[in-house]
Amino acid sequence: MEEKIKIPRGTRDFLPDEMFKRRYVERTIREIFQSFGYKEVQTPTFEHLELFTLKSGEEIIEEIYAFKDKGNRDLALRPELTAPVIRFYVEKMQMEPKPLKLFYIGNCYRYDRPQRGRYREFTQVGCELIGTDTPEAYAELIYLSYTILRNIGLKNIVLRLGNLDIIYSLLENMGVKKNQFRELMHLIDKSKFYELEKKLFEMRVAKSKVKMFREFLNCNSIEKLREFIEAPAVDRFREIIDFLKVFGIDKFEIDMKIVRGLDYYKGIVFEIDAPILGAEKQLCGGGEYELIPLFGGKEVPTAGFAIGFDRAIIALEEEGYVFPEQKLDVYVIPINEKTLKNAIKIVNMLREKNIIADVDLMRRGLAKSLKYASSVKAKKAIIVGPKELEKENVIVRDMDSGKQIEVKMKNLLSMIK
Amino acid sequence: MEEKIKIPRGTRDFLPDEMFKRRYVERTIREIFQSFGYKEVQTPTFEHLELFTLKSGEEIIEEIYAFKDKGNRDLALRPELTAPVIRFYVEKMQMEPKPLKLFYIGNCYRYDRPQRGRYREFTQVGCELIGTDTPEAYAELIYLSYTILRNIGLKNIVLRLGNLDIIYSLLENMGVKKNQFRELMHLIDKSKFYELEKKLFEMRVAKSKVKMFREFLNCNSIEKLREFIEAPAVDRFREIIDFLKVFGIDKFEIDMKIVRGLDYYKGIVFEIDAPILGAEKQLCGGGEYELIPLFGGKEVPTAGFAIGFDRAIIALEEEGYVFPEQKLDVYVIPINEKTLKNAIKIVNMLREKNIIADVDLMRRGLAKSLKYASSVKAKKAIIVGPKELEKENVIVRDMDSGKQIEVKMKNLLSMIK
Repeated sequence: MEEKIKIPRGTRDFLPDEMFKRRYVERTIREIFQSFGYKEVQTPTFEHLELFTLKSGEEIIEEIYAFKDKGNRDLALRPELTAPVIRFYVEKMQMEPKPLKLFYIGNCYRYDRPQRGRYREFTQVGCELIGTDTPEAYAELIYLSYTILRNIGLKNIVLRLGNLDIIYSLLENMGVKKNQFRELMHLIDKSKFYELEKKLFEMRVAKSKVKMFREFLNCNSIEKLREFIEAPAVDRFREIIDFLKVFGIDKFEIDMKIVRGLDYYKGIVFEIDAPILGAEKQLCGGGEYELIPLFGGKEVPTAGFAIGFDRAIIALEEEGYVFPEQKLDVYVIPINEKTLKNAIKIVNMLREKNIIADVDLMRRGLAKSLKYASSVKAKKAIIVGPKELEKENVIVRDMDSGKQIEVKMKNLLSMIK
Repeated sequence: MEEKIKIPRGTRDFLPDEMFKRRYVERTIREIFQSFGYKEVQTPTFEHLELFTLKSGEEIIEEIYAFKDKGNRDLALRPELTAPVIRFYVEKMQMEPKPLKLFYIGNCYRYDRPQRGRYREFTQVGCELIGTDTPEAYAELIYLSYTILRNIGLKNIVLRLGNLDIIYSLLENMGVKKNQFRELMHLIDKSKFYELEKKLFEMRVAKSKVKMFREFLNCNSIEKLREFIEAPAVDRFREIIDFLKVFGIDKFEIDMKIVRGLDYYKGIVFEIDAPILGAEKQLCGGGEYELIPLFGGKEVPTAGFAIGFDRAIIALEEEGYVFPEQKLDVYVIPINEKTLKNAIKIVNMLREKNIIADVDLMRRGLAKSLKYASSVKAKKAIIVGPKELEKENVIVRDMDSGKQIEVKMKNLLSMIK
């Protein structure tokens, strides 16, 4: 087949079974967000390119699908959804009562080298909590992300909590300047600890302090943190954790190496992993951030998270989760053309009663129709024959057992239900 | 605000209320397709540009968002979904049991002059029926499109049926050559009947025949059609209409001027209008077509339809349809910080029982919290005060009537449900 009529590289088609799974998980996620008082929003698939460079720097152009429209505007397929949703908030929702709880489920695009679990078009689920910065608010946000992953059926997930304000306070105590934070955070993010130490030495931080900072990054409890730093940020971190326990989460790790790789994060940050996925284990990342003033809005506390939908599905599959399957309640088979109209009336009546039903549309024989009925996973077949019709009867066949019984037409509905 | 951080021209953001409506209609449509045995598929947002020019001609580039990827491939945001789904079928589904019933709900893109009800990003709903061409199959397809529009709540819709095979047979009888059909059909599609007559004269068709053809185009019944032409195509048209009546549709118009504007249609064609929308009234169009061989697949009968989702929503609004609203079952308000943890435990318990519940996350006073509760349309508020807590009670307030009662904590759940 010619290249031009094939699917573009790095993208996917979803077959019916896969799609049914995905819609099932999507619906579950939507219901959880709604049960927490979150409301869904949607933004366009493309935005002005500058929206993303403003947020993430010019580097991002490298991995973005950018194009010009016929008005010579620079547009980009969205690589993520926080910038569009915050842009939307600034344009149209600043006057809404706070807190504003917004969620979204949408496709994003990244010009990446295709590899397992990484696609050029992928689905992102996420939310933004706007207008409150109480510890209980952030605890609820973290609890929500955890609840979503648990309630879609994942058995083994690990929540890790970090805090950027604490790291920044400590770096300041060490004499590091604010404009030097970025390159250091980048090295922590990439787990390049040797380069981190080298860079700190270059910044003339004393050897003992560098050693201390390395130890600090390995802290795994609030008590340990207090050995390195006493700051309001530590108290605040503790408060969030206390509320997290009230919400019912007491299994989590403290991980001061969480950076989130983006300049606009601050305060609490968190990630959730599915260890079963190995190197590509991160399913969710989020935290407190500041983006609204950058887009021209009035400053207000914001936090949010994003879940990689595709990776969550892979994790469910790897854990052996049994997804529901699309089934057909009934397949109606007219024995011959004379009973076709009766068969149609039966399938019509069933569909009106919300029974998932289909009817032979190919005028095939009984054997072929039964074969088709099992290929589309019909639970029952209704066989409409002229002899039975005379008695106002039809035959109902259980597709699993193969058992057939003759049923009065007027009793059909109660029998099928 | 700067242009670059505004929404791109011709696209839309959807606020929570609008989004809730859209998801509601989307879910209803999905359930109807599934009740007819259709299965959902999804294809990428962009395809190779050639896929669309191959199907619709080079003209389409004018109204497409086309761009090059970093591998210098010509890509395009999909302007419609039939070409991608048929491409998908040819690549991966040719061996599936027939008939194959596929549906999709997805966004499409057109570089159009923005105007009312026409956006650069819009949602298309549609389906393809592959592998059968019996009259009952096409009747079911038409009935399905009609059922979708009726069951989402539209009261006044008009179904029109046409048939391209009949027009082509008549044109052949008139001595028009096959390679001349296209420009004639184009004029019919645009209702340019004066130009049509002129063109027929140019093609040396006799004046009486041209007059006859104009009359033929105004036929409104099978019986009238038979006065102009006797052809197998007319019998076939009649058979489809007979089955349509068996499915329960007896209100429709015969409209021989339906062309569908696309070269690959043949046989039965149909459109459904919402007259309330005036000039932009068409909600649905479909018919029998031939596209699989063009994409390199083995020839097999195909038919399908597409519904303009955005326009269907506008029609519902114009008809005054009352959409369900997203509501909050319960808003939990701690009177002060001391009852906050109890409030969280209550909201947690309610959410676990699938009650849509939220809790004050801003430590506001009672009055402000009640105001917020009504702004988010909470049905009930649960007020958690220290005095009541001592008696293991809380106060439940009906947000509509303002009536409050004190309730035992252990009876709360049954009271809320």
